[in-house]
Amino acid sequence: MSKEITENKNKRIMLTVAYDGTAYHGFAFQENVRTVEGILNDNISILVGENVEVIGASRTDAGVHAYGNIVVFDTVSTIPADRFAPALNSKLPEDIRIMDSCQVPDGFHPRKCYSEKTYEYRILNTKTPVPTKRQYTWHCSYPLDAEKMNKAAHFLVGEHDFTSFCNVETQAISHVRNIISTDVFRHGDEIVIRIVGNGFLYNMVRIIAGTLMQIGRGKNEPEDICKMLEAQDRTVAGPTAPPQGLFLVKYEFPKGSRVNKDSEN
Amino acid sequence: MSKEITENKNKRIMLTVAYDGTAYHGFAFQENVRTVEGILNDNISILVGENVEVIGASRTDAGVHAYGNIVVFDTVSTIPADRFAPALNSKLPEDIRIMDSCQVPDGFHPRKCYSEKTYEYRILNTKTPVPTKRQYTWHCSYPLDAEKMNKAAHFLVGEHDFTSFCNVETQAISHVRNIISTDVFRHGDEIVIRIVGNGFLYNMVRIIAGTLMQIGRGKNEPEDICKMLEAQDRTVAGPTAPPQGLFLVKYEFPKGSRVNKDSEN
Repeated sequence: MSKEITENKNKRIMLTVAYDGTAYHGFAFQENVRTVEGILNDNISILVGENVEVIGASRTDAGVHAYGNIVVFDTVSTIPADRFAPALNSKLPEDIRIMDSCQVPDGFHPRKCYSEKTYEYRILNTKTPVPTKRQYTWHCSYPLDAEKMNKAAHFLVGEHDFTSFCNVETQAISHVRNIISTDVFRHGDEIVIRIVGNGFLYNMVRIIAGTLMQIGRGKNEPEDICKMLEAQDRTVAGPTAPPQGLFLVKYEFPKGSRVNKDSEN
Repeated sequence: MSKEITENKNKRIMLTVAYDGTAYHGFAFQENVRTVEGILNDNISILVGENVEVIGASRTDAGVHAYGNIVVFDTVSTIPADRFAPALNSKLPEDIRIMDSCQVPDGFHPRKCYSEKTYEYRILNTKTPVPTKRQYTWHCSYPLDAEKMNKAAHFLVGEHDFTSFCNVETQAISHVRNIISTDVFRHGDEIVIRIVGNGFLYNMVRIIAGTLMQIGRGKNEPEDICKMLEAQDRTVAGPTAPPQGLFLVKYEFPKGSRVNKDSEN
């Protein structure tokens, strides 16, 4: 190893990663299948000439998309932090893009640090599915009442036990989570469900989306969502909406999480 | 052939077809490659038990999408006209959907009849391409001035010789076309170019989009588009924008084109 490299100090780099989840078996690395984490590890390792394994903020399921998932990794590379984005984009497949790269404090861990996550779930509310939207929406041909869905979603805001809105296979010990805000609105022929929280259980946003869809088509009333929360029983809430309508929009970390001065979270 | 079938009268059915052009070698039938027309012919023929060849309104290029291309075909099938849409959707691949089906007068020909066609071209105007939009937009990282693009597009309205905005391989004898309206506007992180006309030359919308992009980034002024029209020379206009940003939105035919009473064009 050259003197130059041994003298380089490790630095921790954070990437904001967007991807089209259609062709991936989810974010988390698995042997012998295409995962976002696997592709990132391969391409970063080639770029820096070290064996890199990223730490991801969110292990999104197969078919789920992201505008702003977060990964961090340590490297002795002398590549300036903000140059990782263009350097990696010249190597990565087109369905993964690095939207931003910066240096973060050495101990920064995207799952252990406080963060606010924004998810969107999109329902295409048309008589017939639109082919160009089939991989990015859940199609529902029943007329949906977005106002009722919005009213129902607001009951989720605050700290609640979300056992009814969690896949029973979860490994989380506590099912209490804090939803910071919700907004459900019609956008053209789509209904967008936007949820901000500082933590989500396994399949939580997709179960909320499935439950709101049933409220929107009149199977349940907005107030029923309160009873579902109280029941702490997965069987009382709606179905798990399919993965392709879900987008991890962004992570927000407290100020000071970045080392570079030129950008703020 | 059974008596029942021989007594059935031919009727002409019109389908409104939406497709994601990503996986197709364009609309027009070609031997041994996947085309929208080929897939439609195969599936309609199986459904009606006759050998059907559709007549398409627009032969969109490889990678171009449609919300409302039009095809017609003749059949002796007793399937009610409005049932062709759901019946075909249960057979077709997910990237082709029949949005509507109806009966039209026997002689109705979608290319020989007067029609108004609406196209949209979408430019994604962000620093980094967004993976989920890569197959449905043209990415441009330069800041674009949508107002200038809109002003420029308005100069195209009316009857003009569009030689400068036409692929030189066109087989059209006259290059005079009538643009009915144009509208260019920012929609979130996209710039949408909407053009309505009663006829378009080969690659005309894509060359207009490429030219407007250059005006939007300041390489040309809006008024320059008038000089380009006058020059009648393909080399003076902008580049041909790539196919994936182009959507054939809809066809409008004169009233009375449909035989069913329950819908209007």
